[in-house]
Amino acid sequence: VLICNAMEREEGAKSGYPVETYHSYRLIDLITEGGSGSEGHLRMMAEILKKHGVSGKVAFYGRATPGDGYHLISRLPGLVPGVEVISETGRTLIDDACLTKDPAEVAALRDVAARTNAVMGEIVDFIKSHKAKDSVLVQADGSPLTVRDVKRYLRERLYNRDLENDGEPIFAVGRDAGIPHSHGEDSDPLALGKAIIFDLFPRALDTGYLHDMTRTFCIGYAPPEVEEAYEQVGHIFHDVMETLGPGVACADLQGKVCDFFKAHSHDNIRDNVQATTGYVHGLGHGVGFEIHEAPGMYSYSKDILQPNQVITIEPGLYYPDRGFGVRIEDTILIDDKGEVHSLTPFPKDLVIPVSEA
Amino acid sequence: VLICNAMEREEGAKSGYPVETYHSYRLIDLITEGGSGSEGHLRMMAEILKKHGVSGKVAFYGRATPGDGYHLISRLPGLVPGVEVISETGRTLIDDACLTKDPAEVAALRDVAARTNAVMGEIVDFIKSHKAKDSVLVQADGSPLTVRDVKRYLRERLYNRDLENDGEPIFAVGRDAGIPHSHGEDSDPLALGKAIIFDLFPRALDTGYLHDMTRTFCIGYAPPEVEEAYEQVGHIFHDVMETLGPGVACADLQGKVCDFFKAHSHDNIRDNVQATTGYVHGLGHGVGFEIHEAPGMYSYSKDILQPNQVITIEPGLYYPDRGFGVRIEDTILIDDKGEVHSLTPFPKDLVIPVSEA
Repeated sequence: VLICNAMEREEGAKSGYPVETYHSYRLIDLITEGGSGSEGHLRMMAEILKKHGVSGKVAFYGRATPGDGYHLISRLPGLVPGVEVISETGRTLIDDACLTKDPAEVAALRDVAARTNAVMGEIVDFIKSHKAKDSVLVQADGSPLTVRDVKRYLRERLYNRDLENDGEPIFAVGRDAGIPHSHGEDSDPLALGKAIIFDLFPRALDTGYLHDMTRTFCIGYAPPEVEEAYEQVGHIFHDVMETLGPGVACADLQGKVCDFFKAHSHDNIRDNVQATTGYVHGLGHGVGFEIHEAPGMYSYSKDILQPNQVITIEPGLYYPDRGFGVRIEDTILIDDKGEVHSLTPFPKDLVIPVSEA
Repeated sequence: VLICNAMEREEGAKSGYPVETYHSYRLIDLITEGGSGSEGHLRMMAEILKKHGVSGKVAFYGRATPGDGYHLISRLPGLVPGVEVISETGRTLIDDACLTKDPAEVAALRDVAARTNAVMGEIVDFIKSHKAKDSVLVQADGSPLTVRDVKRYLRERLYNRDLENDGEPIFAVGRDAGIPHSHGEDSDPLALGKAIIFDLFPRALDTGYLHDMTRTFCIGYAPPEVEEAYEQVGHIFHDVMETLGPGVACADLQGKVCDFFKAHSHDNIRDNVQATTGYVHGLGHGVGFEIHEAPGMYSYSKDILQPNQVITIEPGLYYPDRGFGVRIEDTILIDDKGEVHSLTPFPKDLVIPVSEA
């Protein structure tokens, strides 16, 4: 049963669930009697549970202010006899339910994957359509092509396929690419020979499911140190792809990547939790209706991979003071038979060739 | 002091605040010792308060799962001697701080207002650029112009001005316009003589502030019942604009609107909380960094208007079974001298004239 504001009743009915409105539970009267909107909502929640004959364990999900969460959980049992309120923290029942995907979810994730890969291709084509002058890409009027220009075109291309990035996409040039969650500077020109990390994670506006992919590009040419780092990241990416599958521990996969980078003289976050150069983050995470779902692929993760999971694999190396970072990220399906498929077939070529203006 | 994940440190530094990272508080060790990520985060919060010598009243804001909010508030005092955790519910200190706007906020709200009004004009021009055939607007290829087409063009125009609607904008035709929060059906054609409610509430991507405006349109012509309802809504809109200012109670303004509609034989939400036709919602709300801020302009509101507030005024009439709804919404500034200014100068003409194909 979906219970919502009367104004939202038709949007609610699209869910297919029976819809009731707050008015049926005397919300306004309860607010007036209780003296505040929050008190009224708490009392309405009690009315809802009573009317539906709910008893035993009750849990609350979604997002609220910490204070509202505290009041709901601490005070509701006193208002509804026979109700025990569960106060889960950290990973919840809903998070556990999202650990695996059913066939309809897998279909939606495949669909948003195909659309996202197509947009990635359109952006690379857009970049390629520009010529180089004085070590930067330039537009028809001779002005430099900037991160802002790319992001504007990107938004248009996303919307054209009913996609919307879930927050600001990452298009980070040079030093910014060396800081994993830097979104990039709008005014930065697309300069030749700099590593560009392009991390795209759009939501399908029709289904609500997400795709998450990252490619690293150098325009024109790649400096040797970027090329070397990129080869190492590509190597361990493929090693992980060969290794992962049902029964594999997420912590072991992260450990494998840390071992590899350590052997190649990079600092890593398992051996140095304060690392800000080298390999500085987790190997991946679940993707579904939210961009970061369980499992999280950290050294301290207790998760074991299983069939019907959709996760990212995203090793990277970061050297902001040397002006670069590289990352490769595919979204991966472990299917119902335990077979592993990348949902991100877009090529992993580092260099985007361009010609001089 | 802003404390964040190391990967976010550069984005955090853009705030201008001193930035510390979770690593400085041994997050990973605490997770390992505590057995879970949420336990580790709770212990880290305790470390943060201790290191910064925090004592006395502490409050938490933002959004969390209800369970995480409950654990934070109920357990933290036991971990940090001398700390008392406040559990505000409903309107918080932050909400109160947002009741009024400082000069920089007013400037940002004026700026996003101007950009939003310009986009509204571009959309009306876009609609006008189409001709009518068989009672619907058609595109160059003869196919009907749909809500989907308008929303796609809208998104492009928004991005062109660094705006992004805060959720799905409302572009609701005919019966859908009769349900205040129906977003409209993508496949609906823009039919002549139907009321269209267009509620646009974009966020400026640069400043983060929002504008909120609604216009009602009939393409080609307006049926008499829509015209009559629209005239009444326009009448009370202007009456409210003449009345509002510092010292005026929000509940009285809502009461004035309910009185007026009642006198014109419309059901209203004050006299019938279950009303789904007539005037079915509050008169307005604060706008700032969130789309719905305090004050809320309901019958039970205790807020008194004051200088330096930015609020919406949005009376409407809704008759879904008769196939229409109408609403007018401006965002209003009560300035530091108590003078009232609409930030939404876009014309309120009901009919968009078009020619036949």
